[in-house]
Amino acid sequence: MDIADLRDRILKQDRRALARAITLVESARADHRAHAGELLESLRGNGKQALRIGLSGTPGVGKSTFIESFGMMLTAKGLKVAVLAVDPSSARSGGSILGDKTRMERLSRDPNAFIRPSPSQSHLGGVARRTREAVALCEAFGFDVVLIETVGVGQSETVVAEMSDLFLLLLAPAGGDELQGVKRGIMEMADIILVNKADGELKSTAMRTCADYAGALRLLRKRPQDPEGFPKAMTVSALQEDGLEKSWDEMTALTEWRRESGHWDMRRSAQADYWFHEEVRQGVLALLENGDVKAAIDQLGARVSAGEVTPSAAADRVLGMLDLKTG
Amino acid sequence: MDIADLRDRILKQDRRALARAITLVESARADHRAHAGELLESLRGNGKQALRIGLSGTPGVGKSTFIESFGMMLTAKGLKVAVLAVDPSSARSGGSILGDKTRMERLSRDPNAFIRPSPSQSHLGGVARRTREAVALCEAFGFDVVLIETVGVGQSETVVAEMSDLFLLLLAPAGGDELQGVKRGIMEMADIILVNKADGELKSTAMRTCADYAGALRLLRKRPQDPEGFPKAMTVSALQEDGLEKSWDEMTALTEWRRESGHWDMRRSAQADYWFHEEVRQGVLALLENGDVKAAIDQLGARVSAGEVTPSAAADRVLGMLDLKTG
Repeated sequence: MDIADLRDRILKQDRRALARAITLVESARADHRAHAGELLESLRGNGKQALRIGLSGTPGVGKSTFIESFGMMLTAKGLKVAVLAVDPSSARSGGSILGDKTRMERLSRDPNAFIRPSPSQSHLGGVARRTREAVALCEAFGFDVVLIETVGVGQSETVVAEMSDLFLLLLAPAGGDELQGVKRGIMEMADIILVNKADGELKSTAMRTCADYAGALRLLRKRPQDPEGFPKAMTVSALQEDGLEKSWDEMTALTEWRRESGHWDMRRSAQADYWFHEEVRQGVLALLENGDVKAAIDQLGARVSAGEVTPSAAADRVLGMLDLKTG
Repeated sequence: MDIADLRDRILKQDRRALARAITLVESARADHRAHAGELLESLRGNGKQALRIGLSGTPGVGKSTFIESFGMMLTAKGLKVAVLAVDPSSARSGGSILGDKTRMERLSRDPNAFIRPSPSQSHLGGVARRTREAVALCEAFGFDVVLIETVGVGQSETVVAEMSDLFLLLLAPAGGDELQGVKRGIMEMADIILVNKADGELKSTAMRTCADYAGALRLLRKRPQDPEGFPKAMTVSALQEDGLEKSWDEMTALTEWRRESGHWDMRRSAQADYWFHEEVRQGVLALLENGDVKAAIDQLGARVSAGEVTPSAAADRVLGMLDLKTG
């Protein structure tokens, strides 16, 4: 495989080369991994920093419609937009988010947009690595904005937030006792909460929902990376393309503040460090997936759950198998 | 050391023996650890399940006053109450929470109460293990209620929540824009939020704060272990001993529901399993604390943060030192 050629074509904004490179980083084959590493290393430092926007929202909130409308607004401004997805459920369900490009018909035909469905990988660690590498490829290619979409499954929001400059939470209007099912802890990550479907009959409900979340956000601890007024909750209508400009203005204002205050660079550095440590941790913890050790953990875990052995005694036994001493 | 004798004295509710046994499980010395393991194993299955109540609250919310008033109310009902603490900050600050028993003068003299300050350990993993073992000793001894106190530092709430049957979050009244600084994600763990100081001038503010949190709780996803109406927010005045009976009634109702629905046993099993896996993980991750490996991680981490090497390439180099292969 001619990595230098692939590199050059990506830098010349050849979309087929980009698609091929993403397929390469998504592969689990050892030789592909080696080529992917070589390609990424040769591209490091090229291109500019895109604005990486993480977007989470459960099915039914209108995520596809939002991405389509929001993406079209950005390309109309002359910006190049890539859309990627992290979907740990796709391997199980057999489908994948973004897989059905017909849900984003206009955006998928836009020459300034690039849409890539999520790789079918069951292991979230693998999805995270491959998505980060796809983001790096899109940055080297020269996209202005990289949208990283996820559904609220397991740890996928954390994964996306840790590779994004901005994190958006998209919600649907919910009246009274009709719960949103916002995962506990997810508000922690949101920079902007967007209550979608603020149109027609749902408009007043959307505004009430927005006020509820604005109130909830005010009860949380202030983060150093937030200027006055952030995180914030806003209403939008992706369908009527209403509020999208305003939301983009807020994103731009937040981004500029973070760039000027140094938080942008700090966050990028901290994220690189996070993924380095995370990969090391995952690599070491893979020790526990080895046949004999795994069997012992499963067997002892059942006895611990049944109260037949204390957690500490059982842990000591497993660690003894690994010939490790803990203090 | 005569472990059989210590065991017998604990089962006979000898408080000095209990204090000595807790000192033993708090020790890091290898021979003490072996004796502690032997003692805990010999006590396993003895005594009854106490109600383990985790309690978190930042300094200033009136935690000591609450524990004193709440504890006195329980002992007046004929219940035996133990109070333990998890305080990862004590090693750093040199002090420890609960260290100053004069803050709980009445309770500390109550023959049906037992107060134990937090061990001075800087490593949260160590504190967690020792506190869990102290809880097991208190259960074998025969306490009806074990209160586990913590301040909102780092991961200490998670540690306490994972060893508690009920988790209480104690807050102070806060008006308008005066933020509570509730750590993002902590509401996830609360079964009951208690807004303290609902007395005198602060009473109406406390009621407003309580309503705000009740609203915020309703916006979160329902958990299977919660009956209708939980988690809930309530006001109390530890000073005027007001609302304490009502809060105990709610705790009792929640506990009974969880016992009958099987969630109590499921949670105890899941917690034992959690700590087993957690100790195994911590033991394996201790590999990364070894001299050469740690030095390499620090050095590569700096280069990753500076953008000189990708996180994946750096991680592969560290894992190569450990001679581990990851998929």
